Parts: sequence; C-alpha cells; structure tokens
Amino acid sequence: MKESLDFIYKEQKELSTFSGIGALLGWDQMTYMPPEGNVGRSEQISLISRLAHEKFTADELYRHVKKLNEIHNLEKLQEKDRAVVVRLEKDIEKSRKVPSEFVERMSKTTAIAYTVWQEAREKDKFLLFAPHLEKIVELEKEYCTFINLPGPAYNSLLDEYEEGMTVETLKKEFAYLKPQITEILEKITSSNVYRRQQAFDMKFDVEKQKRICDFVVKKMNLPKRRSRLDVSTHPFTTSMGDDDVRITTNYERKNPLFSFFSTVHEAGHALYELGLPRDEFKNTVISDAPSLGLHESQSRFWENMIARNKHFWNYFYSEFQKIAPEKLKDMDIETWYRYVNQVRPSFIRVEADELTYCLHVILRFELELALIDGEIKVSELPMCWNEKMTEMLGITPKNDKEGVLQDMHWSGGSFGYFPTYMIGTIYASQLFKQLSQENSSLIEKIEQGNFINILSWLRKNVHQYGRLMTADEIIKKTCGDGLNSKVFVSYLKDKYYPLYDV
Amino acid sequence: MKESLDFIYKEQKELSTFSGIGALLGWDQMTYMPPEGNVGRSEQISLISRLAHEKFTADELYRHVKKLNEIHNLEKLQEKDRAVVVRLEKDIEKSRKVPSEFVERMSKTTAIAYTVWQEAREKDKFLLFAPHLEKIVELEKEYCTFINLPGPAYNSLLDEYEEGMTVETLKKEFAYLKPQITEILEKITSSNVYRRQQAFDMKFDVEKQKRICDFVVKKMNLPKRRSRLDVSTHPFTTSMGDDDVRITTNYERKNPLFSFFSTVHEAGHALYELGLPRDEFKNTVISDAPSLGLHESQSRFWENMIARNKHFWNYFYSEFQKIAPEKLKDMDIETWYRYVNQVRPSFIRVEADELTYCLHVILRFELELALIDGEIKVSELPMCWNEKMTEMLGITPKNDKEGVLQDMHWSGGSFGYFPTYMIGTIYASQLFKQLSQENSSLIEKIEQGNFINILSWLRKNVHQYGRLMTADEIIKKTCGDGLNSKVFVSYLKDKYYPLYDV
Repeated sequence: MKESLDFIYKEQKELSTFSGIGALLGWDQMTYMPPEGNVGRSEQISLISRLAHEKFTADELYRHVKKLNEIHNLEKLQEKDRAVVVRLEKDIEKSRKVPSEFVERMSKTTAIAYTVWQEAREKDKFLLFAPHLEKIVELEKEYCTFINLPGPAYNSLLDEYEEGMTVETLKKEFAYLKPQITEILEKITSSNVYRRQQAFDMKFDVEKQKRICDFVVKKMNLPKRRSRLDVSTHPFTTSMGDDDVRITTNYERKNPLFSFFSTVHEAGHALYELGLPRDEFKNTVISDAPSLGLHESQSRFWENMIARNKHFWNYFYSEFQKIAPEKLKDMDIETWYRYVNQVRPSFIRVEADELTYCLHVILRFELELALIDGEIKVSELPMCWNEKMTEMLGITPKNDKEGVLQDMHWSGGSFGYFPTYMIGTIYASQLFKQLSQENSSLIEKIEQGNFINILSWLRKNVHQYGRLMTADEIIKKTCGDGLNSKVFVSYLKDKYYPLYDV
Repeated sequence: MKESLDFIYKEQKELSTFSGIGALLGWDQMTYMPPEGNVGRSEQISLISRLAHEKFTADELYRHVKKLNEIHNLEKLQEKDRAVVVRLEKDIEKSRKVPSEFVERMSKTTAIAYTVWQEAREKDKFLLFAPHLEKIVELEKEYCTFINLPGPAYNSLLDEYEEGMTVETLKKEFAYLKPQITEILEKITSSNVYRRQQAFDMKFDVEKQKRICDFVVKKMNLPKRRSRLDVSTHPFTTSMGDDDVRITTNYERKNPLFSFFSTVHEAGHALYELGLPRDEFKNTVISDAPSLGLHESQSRFWENMIARNKHFWNYFYSEFQKIAPEKLKDMDIETWYRYVNQVRPSFIRVEADELTYCLHVILRFELELALIDGEIKVSELPMCWNEKMTEMLGITPKNDKEGVLQDMHWSGGSFGYFPTYMIGTIYASQLFKQLSQENSSLIEKIEQGNFINILSWLRKNVHQYGRLMTADEIIKKTCGDGLNSKVFVSYLKDKYYPLYDV
C-alpha cells in the first residue's frame, strides 16, 4: 500500500509539472512568441501532451490505483488518500478509453484546423474551413463511441467539461431560459429607454486602459507575486503552477470596456485557480476545478454580479473618472451605470451584453447538438447560424466572420464546451443570491471597493473543495439547490427591468 | 542502417524539442514569471533536463549510433549523415561518462546555490554563499574525474564550453595578453586625455532607450518574425527553436549605454543562432555552435568591432540625437565617440569598457584554476579577488557585492565558462581583420548603417558551418590562423592610442 501510494503521488506530481509546462508553452504562443516560432511550438506542445497522456494512462499507474481502490485497501486509507484514489481511478479509466493513436490524430487535425480557421476568418471564407470542421465533427463522433455514455452521443462530449451534465438537463433548462430571456429582451428593446439609448465615445488610450485594469485586479486581491496580466488576441487564464497563474486581456477591441470586463472575468478565473486546495492535495487530481461550468461561475460572478453591479461603480466610477477625465468628467454615475449595462443584440459573443450573451451560447449548443446528431451538415452551418441569429436576436450577420467563424472553439475540437458558459452564468447568479443572503454588509463592502469578504466566501464555499465534490454537489451544498435557471431569470429581471423602466 | 538512421534523427528531433522547451522555461523565469512561480519552475526545468539527459544517454540511441559509426557502415553513409553520426557519438560518449545521479546532485546543488547567491549578493555576505560554493567546487572536481581529459583537471571543465581548449593554451595566450593590456591601460591612464576625461549625464528614459534598441536591432537585420527583445536583470540570448530566438536587455543600469551595447551584443548571438545550418542539419547536433568562444565572437564582434567603431556612429549618432535631443544636441560626434569608448577601471565586468573587460576575465580564469587545483580555498576567494583587482586594475572593491559576488556563473556551476569571453573577444578581432581585408567597401557600408554584407560574410564564414568543424578549425579556415592574441592587441592599440593621443 505504501509503495502504491508513494507511486501515485509521485506520478501525479510529475503530471502537474507537465501540465505547468504545457500551460507555459500555450501562454507564450498566445502572448509573446514571434510568429514563425509556431511550427516548433506545435511540436513542443504535442510532445508534452503525448508524454503526459502516456504517463497518465500507463499500465503501472493504473495497476497501483486499482489496487488501492480495492475495497479492503480503500477502507484502510486516510480520508484524503481515499479521495485522491477514487478520483484518480475515474479519471484514468476515462482517459484509457481513448486510444493514444486517436489523441494524436485529433491533435494533428486540430493543429491544422486552427491555422486554417484563422485564415478562413481573416478572409471570411467558410469554405476554406469546412473540410477541416467536417473532419473534426467526425472525430468528435468517434470520441463519443469511446466514452460511450448513456443517452445521446453529445452526453459524452458534455461530460468532458461538465461531469454528469446531460443533453436532457440542458434541453430542459434552455427550454425554460430561452423564452424567458427572449421575453426580457423584447420588453427591453420595445422600451422608451432602449429607443433613447446613446452610444458614447469611450475609447480610452491603451495606457489608461492598462492602469484601470491593473487597478481593478489589485482591488480584487489578485496577488502580484503569484500572477500576471498580459495581452493576447483572445483573453484567457492559464496556470503554470500553484503560485503562477496568468491572465490576459486585449486593449484593441471595438467595445471600449472590453479590456476592463474581460480582465475582471479572467481575474475571477485566476482567483479560483489560486484558491484550489493545496497542502495535502497539492499536485493531485483533487487540486483542480470539478467542471468548467463551476470555473466559469467564478469569472461570470466577478464580471457580471460584481463589476456590472450598481454598487460597484459607487467606488470605481470616481477612479475611472480620475484616470480618464477627458471622457468622463461630464458624465454622471447613473448614466455610466446604464452605459456599462446597455443591452443591444450584436454579432460577437465575447462582446455581447450580459443578457444577449445567453442567446449566443444557446445558439451554439443547438448547432453542436444538431451536428453531432447528424441533423445538419457542416456545409449547412453558416445558413443555420444566420437563421438562428435572426430568430433569436433579430439580427442577421452580413458575413461569416461575424457569424459562424467568430469562435476558435470548433477548430480546436472543443465540442460540448459552449454550454459551460451558460451553466457558469446560472451558477454565478445562484452564488450571488446565496452570498447576499448570508452577508448583510455585502452592498456596503462593494460600495467601498472592498472585496476581501467576497473572496473569502468564495474560497470557503467553492474554491476549497477542488474536486472533492462535483460542481453540482458544491452548488447544492452552498446554495441548497442544483443548477437553477429560475434564480438567474429573477436576477435578470431584477436588474434589467429597473434599468429599462419596464 | 536505414532503421538506425531514422532512429537517430527521430531522437535528435525530440531532443531539439526538449531543448526548446527548456529554453522557454528558462527565458520566462528571467523575464515574466511572477516571483513565487520559482519553486514550480525549478521542478519543470529539472524534469525536462532529466528527460532530455535520459534520452540522450539511452542505451538504444547509443547502440544505433555506434553501429552507424562502425567503419564499414560509416563509409556507406552520405556525407551529411556521416557528419551527424560522428559528432553525435562523441557527444553521447561524453554525456554517458557523467552519471545521471551526479547530474541530479549538481542540478539540485546549483538550484539552491543560485538562490543563496542572490541573497548573499543583496546582503553583501559572502559567508552565506561560501558553503554552497564549496560544494560546487567539489562537484566540479568530481565532474573532472568523469571526463578525465589529459593534463590539469580544469581541461575537462574548459572542454565543456570550448572543445579542445586547454589550460596550457590559455596560460600561454594570457601570459602574452595580460602585460600587453596592462601596458596599454597604463599608457591610457597616464595620458592627458584620460585626465581630462569627463563624465556626462547620459541617462535616457526607458522609452527612449527602448526606441534606440529596437532601432539598432532592426538595422542589424534581426528578423522581427523570428525574434524578440525583452527585459531581464542580466541580458541573455536563448533559442526556443530555429525560428524563435530571443534576446533581453536591461534599461535600469547605472551605465546609461548599457542597454544599447548589451542589445547589440545579444543581437550578435541571436544572428548566429538564426544563421546555424538548417535544411539537412535541422534538429541535429550539427545545428549548433561548436563552442561558446565562437558564439561570443559573434556578440563581441557586433558590440565592439562594429558598434564601438567610429564609422558606426557616422550613421547612428544622428539617430541617437533625434531620439534624445535634450541630452545630445550640443555634443559633437567626436566627443560622443570618445565618450562611448572611455576606458576607466571599474568593478563590474558587464559594465566594463572594451579594454579593462579583458582583465576582468583573466582574473576569473586565474581564480577558477587555483580553486580547482586546490591552490586556494573558497574562504580565501574574497581576499584573492580583491588582491587581483588591485594588482590588475589598480582599484579595490569596497565590498563583495562589487567584487567576488557580482557574477552568477559560479552559483550555476559554470566553471570553465569565463575564458570563453576572452576567446570570443580575440576571435572577434581576427574576424574583423579578415573581413576588413576581404571587403574594401566595409567602412562605407558601416558609415551608411548598412550591415547586410557583414551579416552575409559572417553567415558564410562562421554561421553556416554549425558544428561541422571546431571553433579553432573555423577560425583557421576563415582567418588563416587559430586563436591569435597578437591580432587582438594590434586592434586595441590601433583603436585606443589615437583615442588617448598616446
């Protein structure tokens, strides 16, 4: 037993080390790497992925884990070792279902597809990308046959990002959410406030945006000695290790507040990463998020529930005004608050407002499901996309660049990923409701720009569990209820109806 | 044969990939990594080093190489394969002499020693560092017993960085150089020009320094799509792959021109890296520098022979004036040229002028040799350092921070490394002499800020060979002569005597 335990901890530690190396290779590729470094970088990333996959699925590791997981051994283990062993066996068994040969085929296909997707988007030529996407859809279907969960094939894709989530659950939630959100949207767009809604020139120069982002990150208590903020085309968070978590933003987007809200969003992810269980669970499978939905709940929480909150601006708006007086000195806080929460159907998901964002995600889920079920073909995708945009958001993309080609996810084979954005958003509203109930001085603290209590609450109620429970279990334990779209819809109504005098 | 050939190329390619990954881990550690990432980073670096070392010294690879290197097989190989096989066998045999257990012991010792050295330097406490340095000296001696080259133990250390170089050769060269340089220095310091030598306030702000560095790097034809310039405490060059070579500089040093000359220096290294043989030698042991001395010849060439050259400033000075008119508008080019070539004995090697720099290096060589031979003890090092400084440069460090603790090399176990700075400097003067003889329009081109012919000449006469020859063979082939300190001394006299009216 001792030998097996030592072995599985040693292997997990090395796997963590590989994971940190892989994170650095990816981070650098998106931030600083000179463009022609790309070919070499792909080799480096695929070597590390292969070594990690080989290690994780190796017979020796599996044998030790299985031995520890035998009932008579398991009951002799300390609680923390038991948690690791049980979790590890599940993960390994899932990984071992997927042949290395397939992993390699997938990674080669997506490496090429990603480059082609970039070109296709640039040139607005879906046809360039289509044959690669067809291959990827086929590979996704093949992947489902390996994992082979009960129900629709898509369940096996969902499970990769959101353990235990099913098409059935999502369909039910979205069947409720979609008409609700559409109704709110319709009320908003037919309001007088909406009709009078103004565009403002809020373009701050990059230096000022940077100062604002550095400031908010500091106020959010992201530790400078354990994190960084850099620049990439698409903002993201990545973790090189327990004490090295990095976020990025982008200062060049059309939407002038993009850098601010994306920084808050990624900082939310980073705080979660930095709050995952260490000590006895350092470098184990437990020290990770149980699902992407729960991860996303942390970023959406900070981005929407906190940073788009009226009380938040009580403190922050004057700081903004100090940094960019030329734009803001004549604007009152009420106008500003309405401005940062303006709803307006638009084409690009990552630039969408908090309300219409949901429809972007549901649209992608419906299309993914139809592709995997074989109900639509890749060649029909642009048409279906545009139809759904028109139906759900009332606007029709003029081209595929602002339509079906906008997201990188499909080029990377990340089918089943999009729904986690919606799950996270719903979870975030549930956590916010719970926090508000438990913490009577919440508004006061937010108004003072003091977020340390909020962070402690999240640490205690979400972060500290790592993967000791599933996302669903954590939310149930903390909020008394699993995924609950009703809470989210109430939140939306409470927020937007007053804003639009509906 | 086919199978063995395929195997050795496949393994070399993977080794190149490991090497690029290791380079990125090191680069990031010195540039962007948040401080607390350090513990995890050490794990990552040591994992990659271990995997690479295991692969390189693996029995299977050695068996294939040995088989190919048998005379009846070797003669059937194409010339390029033969070169690879011969070189590879030498390298592997050398690596296999050093037990993995030792490599790990060394790497653990130096990882700790580096951190302690930083603290010791910060606090100016050599005593903190001494026990670690003692361990390292013992490990260096142990290393020599593995390599076990003929002659003094130190030969085995030299050979690691400068294949074929010996204590005997260096002693001979330095026995000539030291009095020659001292004599030049004495002539200079007793001249009227030296006595009237002025200090100028040349501190440009960081943004201006950056613009100047970006400008010179561009003029040197360092390709933007395959390289980067970043910031670190100590400037360095590293290569993540054939098409991703990165250099760093530092804008905060006391010496205001430090960033400029260090950028030119590192860019010289980078141009060499980018000019190493590709095509049939891509990802093989041939596509590398044969020695650090030759590598250093490239950086010193650009830094000293080009960028401290009078003709260089003909073009560049007006560019400098444009970027920093507030400092330079009233200074004439002659004064500027004298300023950038001011000789003045000082404590810090990396900030030393071109002339006294040599004495800094010789000093370190003498101390290293004495340590390895057991003639002096680590505890005596500060005293010996200060004595030598006083003897050779006429100045005595007030503390160990500006004395024996200034360089990181010893904390990393890089004994035998310092002499390559001198070798490179001598080679650079030889290359410059040869280039001047072959290229009648050299001065004209330099005066126009046009360096493409110089780069082509270096590509053709140095870079393209990679490790097809030793450094000594390349210099002999190109300059007609091996390491020749006389050429360097002539160069120094030709340059400095007019500058100081000696």
